[in-house]
Amino acid sequence: MNAIPDTFRRKTAALSHDVTRPFASARKIYLRGSRPDIRVPLREVTQTSTHTRNAAEENPPIFIYDTSGPYTDPTLTIDLLKGLPDIRSAWISERNDTELLKDLSSQYGRVRKSDPKLAHLRFEHIRQPRRAKSGNNVSQMFYAKQGLITPEMEYVALRENNNLQALRDDPRYAALLRQHKGNSFGAAIPEVITAEFVRAEVARGRAIIPANINHVELEPMIIGRNFRVKINTNIGNSAVTSSIEEEVEKMVWSARWGGDTLMDLSTGKHIHETREWILRNAPMPIGTVPIYQALEKVDGKAEELSWELFRDTLIEQAEQGVDYFTIHAGVLLRYVPLTAQRVTGIVSRGGSIMAKWCLAHHQENFLYTHFEHICEIMQAYDISFSLGDGLRPGCIADANDAAQFSELETLGELTKIAWRHDVQVMIEGPGHVPMQLIKENMEKELHDCFEAPFYTLGPLVTDAAPGYDHITSAIGAANIGWYGTAMLCYVTPKEHLGLPNKQDVRDGIIAYKIAAHAADLAKGFPGAQLRDNALSKARFEFRWEDQFNLGFDPEKAREFHDATLPKDAHKVAHFCSMCGPNFCSMKITQDVREYATKQGMALDVVLEEGLKKKAEEFKNKGSEIYQKA
Amino acid sequence: MNAIPDTFRRKTAALSHDVTRPFASARKIYLRGSRPDIRVPLREVTQTSTHTRNAAEENPPIFIYDTSGPYTDPTLTIDLLKGLPDIRSAWISERNDTELLKDLSSQYGRVRKSDPKLAHLRFEHIRQPRRAKSGNNVSQMFYAKQGLITPEMEYVALRENNNLQALRDDPRYAALLRQHKGNSFGAAIPEVITAEFVRAEVARGRAIIPANINHVELEPMIIGRNFRVKINTNIGNSAVTSSIEEEVEKMVWSARWGGDTLMDLSTGKHIHETREWILRNAPMPIGTVPIYQALEKVDGKAEELSWELFRDTLIEQAEQGVDYFTIHAGVLLRYVPLTAQRVTGIVSRGGSIMAKWCLAHHQENFLYTHFEHICEIMQAYDISFSLGDGLRPGCIADANDAAQFSELETLGELTKIAWRHDVQVMIEGPGHVPMQLIKENMEKELHDCFEAPFYTLGPLVTDAAPGYDHITSAIGAANIGWYGTAMLCYVTPKEHLGLPNKQDVRDGIIAYKIAAHAADLAKGFPGAQLRDNALSKARFEFRWEDQFNLGFDPEKAREFHDATLPKDAHKVAHFCSMCGPNFCSMKITQDVREYATKQGMALDVVLEEGLKKKAEEFKNKGSEIYQKA
Repeated sequence: MNAIPDTFRRKTAALSHDVTRPFASARKIYLRGSRPDIRVPLREVTQTSTHTRNAAEENPPIFIYDTSGPYTDPTLTIDLLKGLPDIRSAWISERNDTELLKDLSSQYGRVRKSDPKLAHLRFEHIRQPRRAKSGNNVSQMFYAKQGLITPEMEYVALRENNNLQALRDDPRYAALLRQHKGNSFGAAIPEVITAEFVRAEVARGRAIIPANINHVELEPMIIGRNFRVKINTNIGNSAVTSSIEEEVEKMVWSARWGGDTLMDLSTGKHIHETREWILRNAPMPIGTVPIYQALEKVDGKAEELSWELFRDTLIEQAEQGVDYFTIHAGVLLRYVPLTAQRVTGIVSRGGSIMAKWCLAHHQENFLYTHFEHICEIMQAYDISFSLGDGLRPGCIADANDAAQFSELETLGELTKIAWRHDVQVMIEGPGHVPMQLIKENMEKELHDCFEAPFYTLGPLVTDAAPGYDHITSAIGAANIGWYGTAMLCYVTPKEHLGLPNKQDVRDGIIAYKIAAHAADLAKGFPGAQLRDNALSKARFEFRWEDQFNLGFDPEKAREFHDATLPKDAHKVAHFCSMCGPNFCSMKITQDVREYATKQGMALDVVLEEGLKKKAEEFKNKGSEIYQKA
Repeated sequence: MNAIPDTFRRKTAALSHDVTRPFASARKIYLRGSRPDIRVPLREVTQTSTHTRNAAEENPPIFIYDTSGPYTDPTLTIDLLKGLPDIRSAWISERNDTELLKDLSSQYGRVRKSDPKLAHLRFEHIRQPRRAKSGNNVSQMFYAKQGLITPEMEYVALRENNNLQALRDDPRYAALLRQHKGNSFGAAIPEVITAEFVRAEVARGRAIIPANINHVELEPMIIGRNFRVKINTNIGNSAVTSSIEEEVEKMVWSARWGGDTLMDLSTGKHIHETREWILRNAPMPIGTVPIYQALEKVDGKAEELSWELFRDTLIEQAEQGVDYFTIHAGVLLRYVPLTAQRVTGIVSRGGSIMAKWCLAHHQENFLYTHFEHICEIMQAYDISFSLGDGLRPGCIADANDAAQFSELETLGELTKIAWRHDVQVMIEGPGHVPMQLIKENMEKELHDCFEAPFYTLGPLVTDAAPGYDHITSAIGAANIGWYGTAMLCYVTPKEHLGLPNKQDVRDGIIAYKIAAHAADLAKGFPGAQLRDNALSKARFEFRWEDQFNLGFDPEKAREFHDATLPKDAHKVAHFCSMCGPNFCSMKITQDVREYATKQGMALDVVLEEGLKKKAEEFKNKGSEIYQKA
């Protein structure tokens, strides 16, 4: 069967080249777990040596948490038409609580699958769907509460540790492990993240591992405030623009630059087929907002939505492997009028759809009234809730108002229900919030939602910078991450203006890697500062290549440097274009430092004996002590 | 005389066109003060009307604090070769405490002025220098302490108010003036900023008005934590790259996008001539680091610097009109060894120069030992101190260490000395600081330096993102601005990598306008939220052009929108490219809102009577109530 059109084949070939382009001086390594099929990817960045007058000091490799998936593993041949390797089926089938289904359970899914007109769009290697055996719960939370440590839990523990335990015993890292004590706002991050700690956090509901049993290509990751702060990226076509190829490309692109999870927010044509392509090639958890597709099925008429239609949509997506669903079950009928006096009303698409439905039917939101039914579906596939903030503020003026906080309280009520079903939950948060009101959001979420992970969109700290909302929101995201938010939903420069292209996605991701990492530093996450320390040491020693390679975007850093000093020789030069060769503070301070340290100039000596003699020596040597080896 | 080469003439012509290009729907207006020559510029942005079913609602003009100077005034003819209009000479000469000098007081200045080989580089219309009459102090702080309200003080009071007093009486602004109460961390910002309040703050040392009596082109502005947070931009050539034309272009460019002050950090050739060109065309205060030029005069050999040479440099620059000097007088001999164990040592150029000098001579920093002499020069021209943080941390690992905080304590000691001479002072701050350590910087500065305005470089909240340090630092800048920092020194994407070009300058400025504005919102600065409220209302009502025009970068916003929906018709479309015409939360929520408000659906009614009947009506009307007029 060769239904896939040549245009798509050509496109995927080009994509493959683009996204598998290796990062300089980096290689993919894997940490082995307790069994051979637990292989946790890391990026190892090799550094050059430091040359001093008398010797060369080795700079050890730095290990970077790696979201890029198999795409950056040169030992693997990537074929988007076939999808990524299956790494979880063995773990899942061993548990012996699931079964492979003969056919899709969703009526809509079956129709799409058998429609010959869709053959040219359809992924060619669709697996048999898997579901919990009747009466079983297959969620990570269920296992955790039973005291079971799953391979997924062990995987994320290794991943969070990021080789840190080994580095602690290696003297080459002693200086680089220096770290400021963080202010964790109540987070309780242990020095060593064990699988047991992961289990306990998942059981407690303070962290989630989004991992649908039908997403067997997944490299598991964890979302919780006692772990690294994560970032989510959004892609999705709409009726106006974008295509399957573009969306798959953006997903791989997102993985390359550091997206931890990805939401497919498609609202246009071929949502079902686009999602299949994405899932089969996605190493990260994939989230959706099922109401978007449900609305497409009723031609955009919100009032024609029904529980039955929605239920079929959930199952359709569940059997494709979606890892978390945004469910706007907190948009209650009585909250809708609270938005009437807002400057920007309801800005969540899902929230506005449900508000419209509630008004049209004068009935309570069916996502709320059927919430326990939804839980039953979620637990059969281990899908996590992302409880949607349909009433989040869309501008500074609407922040922290009665509509927003009323919904948040309802999300807390729903969290308790979901946990009763052992379904994993995270809570979506704003939005647009001025800085002085951000902390209240975090505190209220922790209180009302019992410390379920918070997952916020920014927040944007001003409305006044369209075209730069990756920055307005990275400011809020860094702050709320520091206060305890577990995952930050990225915002691109095109927010409010248009659909992001590849460059916008990259810009949005890097802004959010910065926010998340800044939050990790501020929380004092173990080992987080190692990367900063290594990069700063490289910067101080004019090891330009190492400085580039250790950054979040090595290619951009190199490109910027080359814009002023393109010659290769300048990459080992002991100066840079900012100050020129004879006017460099780094160079001068190296003179000072070498002088001070080489002469054993401890503070006491300086204060007690004075520097007179040493000053003479310094002048006699021509005041330029630093020499390249 | 026609010494200026044709290349420069051509360049300035091109520049003129580029930077005077009007912003759409904007015009320059002036607020009149108590005398006709006090004319405070504002940008007035006109809005389109809101069309509802029954009527058109007028949206009033929005007033924006305007740093762009005469360059955006179409009634003026800009000629960089002649410089900007003189707006301050009358104010200064009226005070009758200054005199015009026959010649420059600086020996170096006289040499440069009379060197025929420099004719082709020299600005053609150099004014006679002005200085305080013997025994007089001409600083704004001196006048303020005497109880005198100068035209400069009145000017900045009007400027900070930004027409807000008039808007408060205008019913069209009532809804837009809605504002969240700020958390001001102890700032005491009045609802109306009067000239008397300005005077009191300047007298107290809590704010400064940098305004050299030789910078008569200056549009005065104020720096203090009870005023709008300001941003500084840096330009400057180096031995490696850049030229006079480029630097002047960057200065005008900086003014256009919102730079409040500008530092000329040139270290290459023709520093003196470059600075003259900049000052004569600069509407904003200009700062320098005089030690840079002093070092050039001794061919980069720090140990050959002397007080006499430095003194002549201060006077040379003072008579050109530099408004504030960065003086690294806090880098004491005994602090230098405290940097030896740092990861990145001393990263301030000025700091490292002085450290090198101290070590070479084994003498205390001559900027410290001659500090009172420096004060005497400053007060004769009204130059403000920017007390340099020569020992600021250059990486996360070095933040808040003994070297940094020891210097800060010394800067406090120097502040008291300067105030005794009635010289205005601000204090420079870091640098690289993780989020959890930022607040300590602000608190210590307020305590140790007696609330003198803090002026920080970022801080960068991680070291790990070369190529994106406008973002890493905007996060820190927004936070420290909120905590009380008065001015934020911008960082461009090229930081650590190369010299910024025009695009980098624009990117850096907008990132910092965002940080400063976010801080103003968080501090609850009166009227700051008006712009956000107006823009968000425009966004909600699909008034695309108004949304663009009210943003910090209207051109970028329009360009981004047009990238997906280029047709003009789309700028009045009631949807956008993100969701498509039938899937827009803004549109849906408008339906809800219109419905709720038109039906008088107050909260009580909803809760008590229910929505049944109204839901029927809604369905009967086709569930699509919103109609364009």
